[in-house]
Parts: sequence; C-alpha cells; structure tokens
Amino acid sequence: MQTLLKKVQDIFASEQFLHEPKELYEPIDYTLRLGGKRIRPMLLLAANQMFNGDMEQVRHAAVGIETFHNFTLLHDDLMDKSPIRRGQPTVYRKWDENTAILSGDTMFALAWRYFLVQPHARLQEILNCFNETAILVCEGQQYDMNFERREDITIPEYMMMIRLKTAVLLAGALKIGALYANAPEQDIDHIYEFGIHLGLAFQLQDDLLDSFGNVAEFGKQTGQDIRDNKKTYLFLSALQSAPADLRRELFDLFASTPQNSDAKVERVLQIYRQLDIRHQVEEAIAKEFRDAVQHLDSINTEETLKKPLRELTTTLFGRKK
Amino acid sequence: MQTLLKKVQDIFASEQFLHEPKELYEPIDYTLRLGGKRIRPMLLLAANQMFNGDMEQVRHAAVGIETFHNFTLLHDDLMDKSPIRRGQPTVYRKWDENTAILSGDTMFALAWRYFLVQPHARLQEILNCFNETAILVCEGQQYDMNFERREDITIPEYMMMIRLKTAVLLAGALKIGALYANAPEQDIDHIYEFGIHLGLAFQLQDDLLDSFGNVAEFGKQTGQDIRDNKKTYLFLSALQSAPADLRRELFDLFASTPQNSDAKVERVLQIYRQLDIRHQVEEAIAKEFRDAVQHLDSINTEETLKKPLRELTTTLFGRKK
Repeated sequence: MQTLLKKVQDIFASEQFLHEPKELYEPIDYTLRLGGKRIRPMLLLAANQMFNGDMEQVRHAAVGIETFHNFTLLHDDLMDKSPIRRGQPTVYRKWDENTAILSGDTMFALAWRYFLVQPHARLQEILNCFNETAILVCEGQQYDMNFERREDITIPEYMMMIRLKTAVLLAGALKIGALYANAPEQDIDHIYEFGIHLGLAFQLQDDLLDSFGNVAEFGKQTGQDIRDNKKTYLFLSALQSAPADLRRELFDLFASTPQNSDAKVERVLQIYRQLDIRHQVEEAIAKEFRDAVQHLDSINTEETLKKPLRELTTTLFGRKK
Repeated sequence: MQTLLKKVQDIFASEQFLHEPKELYEPIDYTLRLGGKRIRPMLLLAANQMFNGDMEQVRHAAVGIETFHNFTLLHDDLMDKSPIRRGQPTVYRKWDENTAILSGDTMFALAWRYFLVQPHARLQEILNCFNETAILVCEGQQYDMNFERREDITIPEYMMMIRLKTAVLLAGALKIGALYANAPEQDIDHIYEFGIHLGLAFQLQDDLLDSFGNVAEFGKQTGQDIRDNKKTYLFLSALQSAPADLRRELFDLFASTPQNSDAKVERVLQIYRQLDIRHQVEEAIAKEFRDAVQHLDSINTEETLKKPLRELTTTLFGRKK
C-alpha cells in the first residue's frame, strides 16, 4: 500500500502540468498538486500488478484516471458552490467560475492525452471502458442534483446514484489496470464488481463518518451533510425506521437552514442514535464489503499477487470505527 | 455540397440523443437538434470522400466532431453569458448554469463515444488528432478571454488566437476524414493546412460581416462585435492605420457601453470606412483563401474527387460580399 502510494506520488512528481496560456494551466497544476488520497490510480496500478502487468505500461493511465477524477471534482465544486477542497480554496473561488469551467474541460482532454500515450492491442476496449465510466459519472452527478429537489428518494435509488457517482470510477480504474495486463474476461468481471461493491461501501462509510466520525479520522468537520440537508443513506434509513412523528420532525429539520446549525446537528444525531441508524449503516457497509471481498477471492490468481489490493482495501477502511 | 449537407442531416436524424436522466440529456438533444451549418462534419465527410474513403466508416466520427463543436459552443455561451444561439435561447438561459456545465461535459464524453465506435488500424492516430485539437480549442478560448482584458493585442496574436479557437477544428475534421481513408502523409499535411487557412479566412470573414454584412446574409444582427467591444481584426487593423487622434477615439469608443449603442456603432463604422478597413480585411481574407486553395491544389488526387470540397469551400464564402 505504501509502495503503491509512493509510486503514484513519484509518477505525479515527474509530470509537468504547467504550459501556456498560464491562466488555463495554473488552476490545473494547482488541482493536480493538491494531493488527495490518489485512490483511483492506486487501484489501477494494484489491479495491473495483480495480473502480472508491466507498471511502466500503466503509469500514464494512472495519471489519466486521477486527472479525470479531479476534473469532476473541479466542476462538482463549482456546481455545488463548495468553497473548500482538501483544506484549500476550490478553483472557482481562488480564480473564478469561467476558469473553473474551462480548466475543467481542459483536464478532461488532458486525461484523454494520458490514455492515448501507450499503444495496446486492447486500446479501444480500454478507452471505451474509460469513456463509458465518464458518462456514468456525469449521469450520477445529475441524479445527485435531481435528488436535492425531490423528497421521495428511496434507498435503492440512492444506491443507484452513488453507484454511478462514485463506485463505477473505482471499478473502471481496476478494470483498466486489468485490461492492460490482459487479464482473462472472467477475472475482469470479478475485479469490476469488486470495485463496485468497494465503492458503495466506501461512500456509505463516508456518509457514516460525516455524522459519527471525529475530525481526526474524517479529515474535515463532521455534521456537514446534516447542515447541507443532504439525503444520505443515514437520513433515508432514519426515514424508513422512524415513527410518523419523528419522520415529520426529520423532514422539517432537513427543510431548515438555521443560522446556528449546531442544535440542528445535535437533534438529528439524537434521532439517528434513537433509531440505531449507525448500526444499520454499518451492516450495509459490511454487506458491500463482504460482496467485494467475495469477488476478489474468486479471481483466479496467486494469493501473493492479491496482497497489495487486499491491503489497499483494508487501508481504505482504516478510518472506520 | 447539397449532397454532403443532406448526408449529415440524415446521419443526425437517425441518431438518438435522449436517454435517462432526462434533465441531463434533454439539453443535449436540444443543442444537437438546433442545426447550425454542420460545416465540420461536412468537411470530415468531404475529405474522406476525396481519398476514396467509405462513408459508412466515418458517419460516427462526423457526429462526434459536431458533438464536440456543440459542446464548446454550450460552454462558451455560458462563459460569455450569450443569451441566444441560432435564434434560440442558449442552454444556460433555457435551463440553468449547472445544466450547461454538466450537459456540456457529457457531450464531450458522447463525442468520444462516437469516435470509439469504429475500429480502424490508425485509430490511435485519429483519436490523438481529435484530442490535441480539443486541447488547442480550449487554449484558444482562454486566449480569447485573456485578450478581453488586454489593450495591446497585436494582429499576429489575434491570428494565433483564431487559429486555435476556430481554424484547428476545421483542419482537424479534414485530417480525421483523410486518416480514415488512409490518405498519404503528404496529402494529410496539405489538407490540414488547407483547413487552417480556410478557418482563418472564415473567421476574418465573420468579423467583416459583423460590421459590413446585412442581416439577410449574416443571419444575425450586425454591429454586435462593436457593441460588445470585441477586439476583432477590423478593430486591430483600424488601430494600426489610424492617426493618433482617431486611435484615441477608437480606444474610448471600445471602452464605453452606452445604453443606446446605435450612435457608437455608426461612429465606429464611419472610422472603419475612413480608414478603408473593409479593403484591408478583404485582402487578408483573399490571402488566406489563396493559401488554402494552394494546399488543396497540391493534393495528389483526381480533380473530380476534389470537387465536393471545392464546392463546399465556395459555399462557405458564398455569404461574402
């Protein structure tokens, strides 16, 4: 895991993102140098390694997948009007909205440039996987925005949305790594499904930590989803479990935006505790995690080769509990 | 020419752009069905035909290049806050800014989907050409925005900007059509340069018509560039030719945004006439046009095969005079 992260960091350190016109490329360099957990390129490298791939062959794809991911964050932050990302001002705040739009567009094209460097017998398949993933991520963001305006979201709808918005990109990164290594079809299917369930577990855990984590493990202020009235898995589970009066109160709380939101956060958490929501979400996470591991177990390759991916999976869930 | 346009229209009529979620795809369908001149797909088909290509092999690429072009218009309209495109409200006005951002992003990915349909021995080269063109177009848009804030733009800088923002996409469309037909390298270089000079001539003519055309031939209100204080080729030529007092007056006029702009437009046109700017621009157009035709002449293929592209070129300049 440390080796993988180090490898990804080395690859990024050797890349040059600054070009002319600087007004276009400085925000791109800023975004790509901010760091983040680099999960997607690590997954891509790990999957490639698992099938005895050649690391040099996928280094550009690793940069490409992270560049795409950062492009989506850049545009999402603009659409959501989020001022802070990774502890720093977002591009539309540090520069302006037009810069965020155009630098984002350019990052999407730069992601493609990375994917087009390396010739490969299955290049068309690799590029198709990347592009279909990109389209699903856009669809996921649209559903997320649609859901903000709807009051009747069901848990299956929510799972479908986070599948598109988060899980398919993890799955796509893994599949691309496996494709470069010419993995057998069946194993490619397994690693993709592993990524889907891992991604779902990952997002549900993010939802959980936002309410029940602490700043040290979560890396940012908790209770933000409640302040933002986000209909997360916790909220939807609570609606499902709550008697009529609490249900009504939850709706009212999530329709309000008080000046001082601390009392609101405290009251929502109290309701969540009363309904044992934490336990429900932990069970859902455990289920996705089990499904993920089952697909990883089914892959027909040596256990030693699976080790880095198993470790990475565990680390991803290290901030749990 | 009519045959080419008909072919492009038929291809678009047979495409389905509506999918779920409709909030994402309706603006895309709206944009792609608004029409426009369809110049880029026509150029792609014409170049393919000129080298005896198979029309069926490039139909998706033709949709792809137009989808990309329309994506850039969609985001440009948002960045420029343009309310009208092709006589209809722009996407960010008809829907909202977030819709324009996300539907635009999705159109870029859809353009890729079209380019990835057709296998081809030179696919990596074709995709590289498309992607490097896309990056240059983004850079061109950035220079265009930078130039709005600068007072010291030179004519060579302006030509560089319109080369990136307009010409490379026409050239790229032609090159892609030729690549699909496996045209010889030398001819590919010629058709690319033909496209560059055609694009430059086309943009200069657009500048000219905006000031000296009439609504019937231009298709929209004239004088808009003057109202918007756009530093077009006409303005820059006028600055270069004008004595100090007129130069000062032009700067002042282009720094003002009067409520009723008719008097301003009339005065600027008067200065342009006094300095014989129309003649200067016509000469610049004629030069680019001659360079374009020279590259077309140099292509080593039968004259009958060049005919559709020659006709298309003439039609593009039909709205002249």
